[in-house]
Amino acid sequence: MEAIKVGLIGFGTVGSGMAQVLHEQAGRLQKKVGTEIVLKRVADIRIEALPPHLAGIELTRDVQQVLADPGIDIVVELIGGIEPAKSFILAAIANGKHVVTANKALISQHGSEIFAAAHARGVEVGFEASVGGGIPVIKALKEGLVANRILSVMGILNGTANFILSTMTDQGLPFATVLRQAQEKGYAEADPTYDVEGIDTAHKLAILMNLAYGMSIRLDEISIEGISCIEPIDIAFGRDLGYRIKLLAITRNHGDHVEARVHPTLVPEDHMLASINGAYNGINFRGDMVGDVLLYGYGAGKMPTGSAVAADIVDIARNILNGSINRVPALSYRHEHLRPRRITPLEELQGPYYIRISAVDHPGVLSTISGILGKHGISIESVIQKGRNAQGSVPVVMVTHDAREAAVRQALAQIDALDICTARSVKIRILVDDGEEEH
Amino acid sequence: MEAIKVGLIGFGTVGSGMAQVLHEQAGRLQKKVGTEIVLKRVADIRIEALPPHLAGIELTRDVQQVLADPGIDIVVELIGGIEPAKSFILAAIANGKHVVTANKALISQHGSEIFAAAHARGVEVGFEASVGGGIPVIKALKEGLVANRILSVMGILNGTANFILSTMTDQGLPFATVLRQAQEKGYAEADPTYDVEGIDTAHKLAILMNLAYGMSIRLDEISIEGISCIEPIDIAFGRDLGYRIKLLAITRNHGDHVEARVHPTLVPEDHMLASINGAYNGINFRGDMVGDVLLYGYGAGKMPTGSAVAADIVDIARNILNGSINRVPALSYRHEHLRPRRITPLEELQGPYYIRISAVDHPGVLSTISGILGKHGISIESVIQKGRNAQGSVPVVMVTHDAREAAVRQALAQIDALDICTARSVKIRILVDDGEEEH
Repeated sequence: MEAIKVGLIGFGTVGSGMAQVLHEQAGRLQKKVGTEIVLKRVADIRIEALPPHLAGIELTRDVQQVLADPGIDIVVELIGGIEPAKSFILAAIANGKHVVTANKALISQHGSEIFAAAHARGVEVGFEASVGGGIPVIKALKEGLVANRILSVMGILNGTANFILSTMTDQGLPFATVLRQAQEKGYAEADPTYDVEGIDTAHKLAILMNLAYGMSIRLDEISIEGISCIEPIDIAFGRDLGYRIKLLAITRNHGDHVEARVHPTLVPEDHMLASINGAYNGINFRGDMVGDVLLYGYGAGKMPTGSAVAADIVDIARNILNGSINRVPALSYRHEHLRPRRITPLEELQGPYYIRISAVDHPGVLSTISGILGKHGISIESVIQKGRNAQGSVPVVMVTHDAREAAVRQALAQIDALDICTARSVKIRILVDDGEEEH
Repeated sequence: MEAIKVGLIGFGTVGSGMAQVLHEQAGRLQKKVGTEIVLKRVADIRIEALPPHLAGIELTRDVQQVLADPGIDIVVELIGGIEPAKSFILAAIANGKHVVTANKALISQHGSEIFAAAHARGVEVGFEASVGGGIPVIKALKEGLVANRILSVMGILNGTANFILSTMTDQGLPFATVLRQAQEKGYAEADPTYDVEGIDTAHKLAILMNLAYGMSIRLDEISIEGISCIEPIDIAFGRDLGYRIKLLAITRNHGDHVEARVHPTLVPEDHMLASINGAYNGINFRGDMVGDVLLYGYGAGKMPTGSAVAADIVDIARNILNGSINRVPALSYRHEHLRPRRITPLEELQGPYYIRISAVDHPGVLSTISGILGKHGISIESVIQKGRNAQGSVPVVMVTHDAREAAVRQALAQIDALDICTARSVKIRILVDDGEEEH
């Protein structure tokens, strides 16, 4: 059988990693697939030459040489961002080529258009590398858990944010200091907004929701809060209360509506997600049949992401060789069964909250605060009031019983307006993992 | 397209779970696969009738009615054990039927014969449910990590053993007491040997090694130690030293030889495998490209295992519908590339050990013991000698630096023969996770 030929657009970190994976694993892949998988041509406008181990592969500055080459079966897009990536992918599809991409921003925002075009043209779009880096998250959800109604997905989906929170926790340092360190080490970008403000995590959540529910979701339907507001004092109080702070993507399936949110969350320290530290990702799927399945590994990086891109290439190569294109629908459910779902408004959510109020150290303060909370139907499970500081201001930390988001917001707005409050209150949602039934 | 028809042999716990999964998920599966998947007939000699929700499915006591029915595409074997399961599977294959099984004992010991028969007949054998219950371990290894040389696999693969060790750890109770509790609750079988003596774990390790390395391994090549010898005192000392005791399956790839062992292991408490408690399983794959990928979930149980069996059925159904049978080779590598590998003899292994010696409480004892260890080239990293008991016997606990298994055995035999020793020494291997390179 003739070799499967791959064209690559974008020879940056992930692109060079993917090329290296195909190079280093060439013999192994042939023993598994039965045919050579060959990187034929690379398009990149920023580099002058490919590294010596890739001698024999053509380098071009003209992306058309990849998009229009009749000898190329699979086009791999690894330049990221919306344009020109989107136009390149649509052009590849129009030319009858299969596509593999790691582009979560694009897939989460323009997936519908891309998948519809691929469906119409009878080609495949692989995007395993767009969520969870090298972890086979998408294959697990689409195939391994195929016979499940997905009840929830909870994940630590951004390694940079998790690295920053883990370091803040271990070293008691403020966000800005740790971010600077991470930038110096190359773990965070010069502009870290996507990673630390939860946007990248929301992109990935949108993709997982597509697959879990057979729906499409607009990014602006996801409630997003980042970690730049997290202070060491809240990490420390959280710890005293038995929690770790993690930036979680959360969706729960309520049947007629589904949650979609990204925010810092207090995770009970004995929960598996609390054990996921540093630059690692962890994603927990709960299925009605299988219970909880958690996957853990590097969510980014040159070689792990290259490994996931290569897995998609192999999957498509096998379908080319067997004449079984689109054997598994791109979005898990077949095209005609995709349907919209209502997103639960954040205000309607209910759960326990961690609340920290900075107040003057006077008698009666706690009673005033708890009075306001009570008026909004918020009852308190525990209170910590520690130390007294020079300015006469003390932190009052409370953990509430289940409360409605809308009520908490209203109560805190009222509390923040009090004279006795010396700074804005802080609220962090607490993860309640209802615990599935025993199987 | 006509429905895919399934025949089931064995309506026990897993069989009824699988039937329930197909029943409850019928609509969802049709929306994903595009065709109905129908359980046509069930063969079981012990039951009189199927539950009401399975009305319409034929029940028979004659297994031939499943094996020889020309209308059945996929035969699911869920009776377990070697015979008659093996004969049934070979008969199904001979009749041109695809097979799905959860039978780890059979696949680990007679897999070569079964896969060769299936290969010759052009049918598939799915065995996702044989390792890790509902966790899509086998798909992750064969497909998600396809572009990796597997460097190691380490796993907690038996939920019963992990439940017993976790409960011993939490409650400080001896093995026999916790085993009895587990048996009363139905978590452990009346004859718990397979689970607690590591045999079931070894079956699963053999299957993972087949897939990881493209080799076949005989069960007697795996070194197996169970957990029945673990005492609460060692769990407590281990904890003081920063470890949790887990029954691990371990294989490491040394190129020309590979490790294959199952034994209780002291796992550093910050290692992900140390967080896996209760009846859960966790499997860590280390690939040369992807780094560490860990999968976690229920390793057994009616519905989780049913979920995995159903995933295999869907995989095969898709191959039937697309004419892409054996699209992914059963053992990851194509038939012609399977080859044997040498197994590292346990005596050649090297690593740190936890050693507990019971000795009379006399001056000079520690010097005698450490002298013998030193003579065998074993150096000590730390010693704990605590409390003194009524009988004048004290536990002396040592953690060694890297030592050879053979040397440790010889030294301990010599120490055990001393008059100053009041009971047999205990040794537990300590997990060293060399930490992969950063990606």
